[in-house]
Amino acid sequence: MAEKKTAPSPSPSQDLTLGKVRDALIRQEDSIVFALIERAKFPLNAPVYDPSFFPQFGGRSLAEAYASEAEALQAKVGRYQNPEEVPFFPDDLSVPSIIPYNFPQVFHPASASVNVNDAIWSMYFNELLPLITVKGDDGNYASTAAADLMCLQALSRRIHYGKFVAEVKFRDAPQDYTKAIQAKDTDTLMKMLTFATVEEMVKRRVKKKAMVFSRNVTLEDKNCDVEVECKVDPSVVSRLYEQWVMPLTKDVEVQYLLRRLD
Amino acid sequence: MAEKKTAPSPSPSQDLTLGKVRDALIRQEDSIVFALIERAKFPLNAPVYDPSFFPQFGGRSLAEAYASEAEALQAKVGRYQNPEEVPFFPDDLSVPSIIPYNFPQVFHPASASVNVNDAIWSMYFNELLPLITVKGDDGNYASTAAADLMCLQALSRRIHYGKFVAEVKFRDAPQDYTKAIQAKDTDTLMKMLTFATVEEMVKRRVKKKAMVFSRNVTLEDKNCDVEVECKVDPSVVSRLYEQWVMPLTKDVEVQYLLRRLD
Repeated sequence: MAEKKTAPSPSPSQDLTLGKVRDALIRQEDSIVFALIERAKFPLNAPVYDPSFFPQFGGRSLAEAYASEAEALQAKVGRYQNPEEVPFFPDDLSVPSIIPYNFPQVFHPASASVNVNDAIWSMYFNELLPLITVKGDDGNYASTAAADLMCLQALSRRIHYGKFVAEVKFRDAPQDYTKAIQAKDTDTLMKMLTFATVEEMVKRRVKKKAMVFSRNVTLEDKNCDVEVECKVDPSVVSRLYEQWVMPLTKDVEVQYLLRRLD
Repeated sequence: MAEKKTAPSPSPSQDLTLGKVRDALIRQEDSIVFALIERAKFPLNAPVYDPSFFPQFGGRSLAEAYASEAEALQAKVGRYQNPEEVPFFPDDLSVPSIIPYNFPQVFHPASASVNVNDAIWSMYFNELLPLITVKGDDGNYASTAAADLMCLQALSRRIHYGKFVAEVKFRDAPQDYTKAIQAKDTDTLMKMLTFATVEEMVKRRVKKKAMVFSRNVTLEDKNCDVEVECKVDPSVVSRLYEQWVMPLTKDVEVQYLLRRLD
């Protein structure tokens, strides 16, 4: 039997350090890029997003109807017992039918419910999707909706990891944050959570990941640091992080911290 | 707005040539490797596969219960209207609730129903899964079952593409195949469909894809032709193709051809 090369990184909730949280964030970049590449296999498939196209979904688009029902099914088998997972349709969820797993609860109770999925949903469909798909309709509506949900869930998990970032940063220096939290000073908190050089590096890394993962791999090519035919435009992935993923993550962090002393 | 670099390849069913079918097969290698990497994020999570662990699923494992219900949901939004998609639980499917999309029907009617999903299911859980996961239980049962289904669907789509391969090869040289089909000469058909040098190249390419896509991409590294820490063992992916994907694809091709004159 072949040896496994690397063990999956443990969830940071089991051992909360900034290093663990960063490793998880870096790993999640891969999942986001994979999901975008898989969505870009299909053209836009506009009927999936038109609530009037399939009247049987009661005013919802196929994408909404599918995501809501898929989340309900995943809730039934326990997905949202893990505090890392945040649903898009929390009102439609089934009660889990399985014995709860004992996930470590590391979030401050008043902060745990921070949820920016509405903003993620709107950003994904209105801004991102037209940038990663070509126009057209190939009829693969179910696969398209499933690929959209993979992207949304990967983005949501990444952005809500801001809760771990905020918790670990608060624990490391509670005195530094307390004054700004008590003053509800959002601007100062945002400044404390912003590291321009780190953000620049993340943007460059995700762009490179898009380049490496979305290339047409052949037996001949050796250098993966050149931009060849890409299934997803690397500069779009960089822009996704700059304009949406990192700002929304910081929104999560600020919202989390503002409730951290409640 | 950024330019899209490459348009998705049209489905071969819209323009059936061996070149188109091969392009689709090559693109699907990426999907399979991505899915395996995403599954390997989680440890084995054995309770997902134990029918006695969650008695509420009526004798099914969580993996079976999830896959069956997820397929039913996807069927409702039209997944199996596309002849490229083959369900694992055909008896549990919902009737599609959407207007049928007019997918081109290119398969010979008597051959269209070839389905080796039982063999794929058994290979995936009994052989492959222990090779790509580490032992352990992190409680992410729902995400694990969802990741398993992504792998299974990617493998099933790839293997059942053998129907396209068989149809296009038959159309290109009906006289060559007819005698063997009429004699039900499975051995001769298998020989006619086997190209050792092509298979060797495919094995090397999927190994390289596993190396490229499962590496920890950093801003520094440039050469992607060296095996560094991999999230999925490249030699396992090569073995997956050698031992299971390519033989099962040829089984599909032979079964398809055996009914091609009915």
